[in-house]
Amino acid sequence: MKDDIQTFDVVVIGAGPGGYVSAIRAAQLGLTVCCIDDWVTDGKPAPGGTCTNVGCIPSKALLASSCLFEEIRDKASEHGIHVEEPTIDVPTMIARKAKIVRQTNDGILYLFRKNKITFLNGRGFFVTSDEDGYLIGVEGRDETRVFAKNVVLATGSKPRQFPGVPFDEERILSNEGALKLKSVPSTLGIIGAGVIGLELGSVWKRLGADVRILEAMPSLLPFADSAISREALKAFKQQGIDMEFGVHIDSIQNDGDRVIVQYKDKDGKNSEMWVDRLIISIGRVPFIAALDAPVVGLKLDERGFVEVDAENRTNLPRVWAIGDLVKGPMLAHKAEEEGVAVAERIAGRKAVTHIERVPSVVYTEPEIAWVGKTEDELKNAGKPYKVGVFPFMANGRARAVGETQGFVKMLADAETDLVLGLHIIGPQAGELIAQGCDALSFGATAEDLALICDPHPTFSEAIKEAALAVNKEGINF
Amino acid sequence: MKDDIQTFDVVVIGAGPGGYVSAIRAAQLGLTVCCIDDWVTDGKPAPGGTCTNVGCIPSKALLASSCLFEEIRDKASEHGIHVEEPTIDVPTMIARKAKIVRQTNDGILYLFRKNKITFLNGRGFFVTSDEDGYLIGVEGRDETRVFAKNVVLATGSKPRQFPGVPFDEERILSNEGALKLKSVPSTLGIIGAGVIGLELGSVWKRLGADVRILEAMPSLLPFADSAISREALKAFKQQGIDMEFGVHIDSIQNDGDRVIVQYKDKDGKNSEMWVDRLIISIGRVPFIAALDAPVVGLKLDERGFVEVDAENRTNLPRVWAIGDLVKGPMLAHKAEEEGVAVAERIAGRKAVTHIERVPSVVYTEPEIAWVGKTEDELKNAGKPYKVGVFPFMANGRARAVGETQGFVKMLADAETDLVLGLHIIGPQAGELIAQGCDALSFGATAEDLALICDPHPTFSEAIKEAALAVNKEGINF
Repeated sequence: MKDDIQTFDVVVIGAGPGGYVSAIRAAQLGLTVCCIDDWVTDGKPAPGGTCTNVGCIPSKALLASSCLFEEIRDKASEHGIHVEEPTIDVPTMIARKAKIVRQTNDGILYLFRKNKITFLNGRGFFVTSDEDGYLIGVEGRDETRVFAKNVVLATGSKPRQFPGVPFDEERILSNEGALKLKSVPSTLGIIGAGVIGLELGSVWKRLGADVRILEAMPSLLPFADSAISREALKAFKQQGIDMEFGVHIDSIQNDGDRVIVQYKDKDGKNSEMWVDRLIISIGRVPFIAALDAPVVGLKLDERGFVEVDAENRTNLPRVWAIGDLVKGPMLAHKAEEEGVAVAERIAGRKAVTHIERVPSVVYTEPEIAWVGKTEDELKNAGKPYKVGVFPFMANGRARAVGETQGFVKMLADAETDLVLGLHIIGPQAGELIAQGCDALSFGATAEDLALICDPHPTFSEAIKEAALAVNKEGINF
Repeated sequence: MKDDIQTFDVVVIGAGPGGYVSAIRAAQLGLTVCCIDDWVTDGKPAPGGTCTNVGCIPSKALLASSCLFEEIRDKASEHGIHVEEPTIDVPTMIARKAKIVRQTNDGILYLFRKNKITFLNGRGFFVTSDEDGYLIGVEGRDETRVFAKNVVLATGSKPRQFPGVPFDEERILSNEGALKLKSVPSTLGIIGAGVIGLELGSVWKRLGADVRILEAMPSLLPFADSAISREALKAFKQQGIDMEFGVHIDSIQNDGDRVIVQYKDKDGKNSEMWVDRLIISIGRVPFIAALDAPVVGLKLDERGFVEVDAENRTNLPRVWAIGDLVKGPMLAHKAEEEGVAVAERIAGRKAVTHIERVPSVVYTEPEIAWVGKTEDELKNAGKPYKVGVFPFMANGRARAVGETQGFVKMLADAETDLVLGLHIIGPQAGELIAQGCDALSFGATAEDLALICDPHPTFSEAIKEAALAVNKEGINF
């Protein structure tokens, strides 16, 4: 069967951040590579996956627009800037976002050409296998079959539905619909105070929506350090975001004009929430169905993820799976790490991924980022630790730009002084966390970070000060 | 003479970023400390030196105001935000800045109290010395004498005057006057395209001034990597800042209504520049006169700086000098490093300062930052090197926020792969450079940085990509 169809060293199914990066790295290592992706926008291939199309990139575009809107409305006057009350034209904002997404799609298509990767636009699926590899079908704009010596599965995840309540993306919204509303909803309900709910809720709140969040857990951001979660809760409440925790959702009804959520509050009392639009962000599930995986006997774990070993091998020979399809945090950069590592392994090289060094960012205002262990994790593990905290209120650049909310919290080993975790809520937290990634990668101690000469005035000085505070040698607080 | 006056283990003269930090560190180490500083604002002590009062902090406050103004005027519409043409009330902007400066002054006074440091507000100067130490006089709001077992000189620097042209701070401005203009000048001339000239020129340009810069050197920012300087020149010209290089200033006349600068252009042709206000930013000189240093025989070097050894010892026993008074870059964080190190040495501990790891930041738009060697320095030293460049145009977060100008350039040893320099022009460059400081401090290779998992989407991914590009393994460009 291989005579009349093209054979590749590697076929990557899915061109999200894990898949396209894996394809590029494999091509750089001299392998012949095909990447198959189904996403189409406005009749054109749209590689980049959830991240590029309906995730990281468009949400940050709306973040930028909504933050500027809020600054004009709420902060210009303190700078002496006189402007009339701003208004937002949502379709223009959404069109700007779409243009940025298109640039990114096109950028990935360019990278495929540059790296001589065959890109096929369609659903990729298993047809059959033999001792040499796998026959992969493609269905969609490109209709063909290719033969793969190695397969990298990178089809990502889909938003989890509330049972019996499909996303119509008009009133019942996933991340996808929440990124393309045509106007600012007067009331926006959100089920789930996770990263997606908080980011998108914040965007529409800044633009004037009345935002109400219902969360089943007793607090928000359960994976963050609890001091960070508490500060975030305080900040979001100050911003007027209404949040209720410990609720149990009984039903969600879309009557065409509004959405009615019936729930029990934390005391078990029956309550109702009536909203114009509802975002349901209660997690994501691996997207496996389209792969026709049962044909070849791909094994899933008990939670429905593709089962892989520590090096992302599935139960099938020369079939690998990465990113949201497998265990670990559902983050673009985690998928990229795995994608690169798998490409290296296929090429016969060694590669290690360090899941424990993967940072998390929540793009709210203030921004939130962390890497490594939380204080509760250290406590529960019985690990003796030291804590250093520095508030942005005492940071010169934060005061100059007027972004003084939040703090840096560093955790270090009580005996060795090794940095174990860095937790930031405040300006540019997502950029500042890089020093935490450096510290974990280089095995730095708090003292090492305290001895680094950071430029003044920068937010990064807050990290140095937190490092000094670990050993009770803080200068500026 | 010691019986009736108070004796301190350490007397620090000057409460700028070097002095106050040195005083705090010395106090933390158990020494008795007095810090003397002359600065008074609105009748109140204003510790913090040039940095806090007329440098880093107020310039970043005006940076924030002027950038917001520019964003509203030039960028809001592309986000779909409708606003009328904004206007700026300069006195409100200046008052906001003054409030931030006052917070910082008060913060330092609080730190003095917290650390049990005696603060004296007045000019500190040498009266006499004996074998035990130095008698220091104080003249100003506090009038007294103190005896110092050790002295740390930290009086900083003053702006260099153009010969025969005193700063009136109305039309002929140093950094001080340029930070408190009462209205936006219609034309603003700047002599000197260094950091101060570029930062302050950019502030007033954003607010609507017609800005013209004259520079004696053939290009701007001669200490930056030449690729960065070229990109900066391109950016500033696009912003409409007029710059002429290789000029020779013949005369500067202030006729009360305007300032007339007569100069020869790079071809030797006589030219004139007429402007409403003129900033002269042609460097800074160490501020030594007020110390009455000849009384005790303090030795200066041939350029007028206090002569110190590698550990900041002057020619006088137990007298140390730090910051702008001594050789090295005139930067707040360099002074801080020296201040901490000197405090450690006085307390009998070891300390090393690494001048070669001191980063530089220029707070323009785009922002500029660098640390380590430039490409020209490596070329001139005959050091084999590799270069990795990544443009922000290919960075997801940069595209999302619309700040795609500039790039990251990494230099690494051709043989060992050790990072030798990091040069950034682009969004948040001053924060991103921290990873370069980390790399130099930890002896990281480009490959080390390429293996770090940065969060997506962040500007910091551009550093990882530049590190990958060093070894021709860039993914996203």
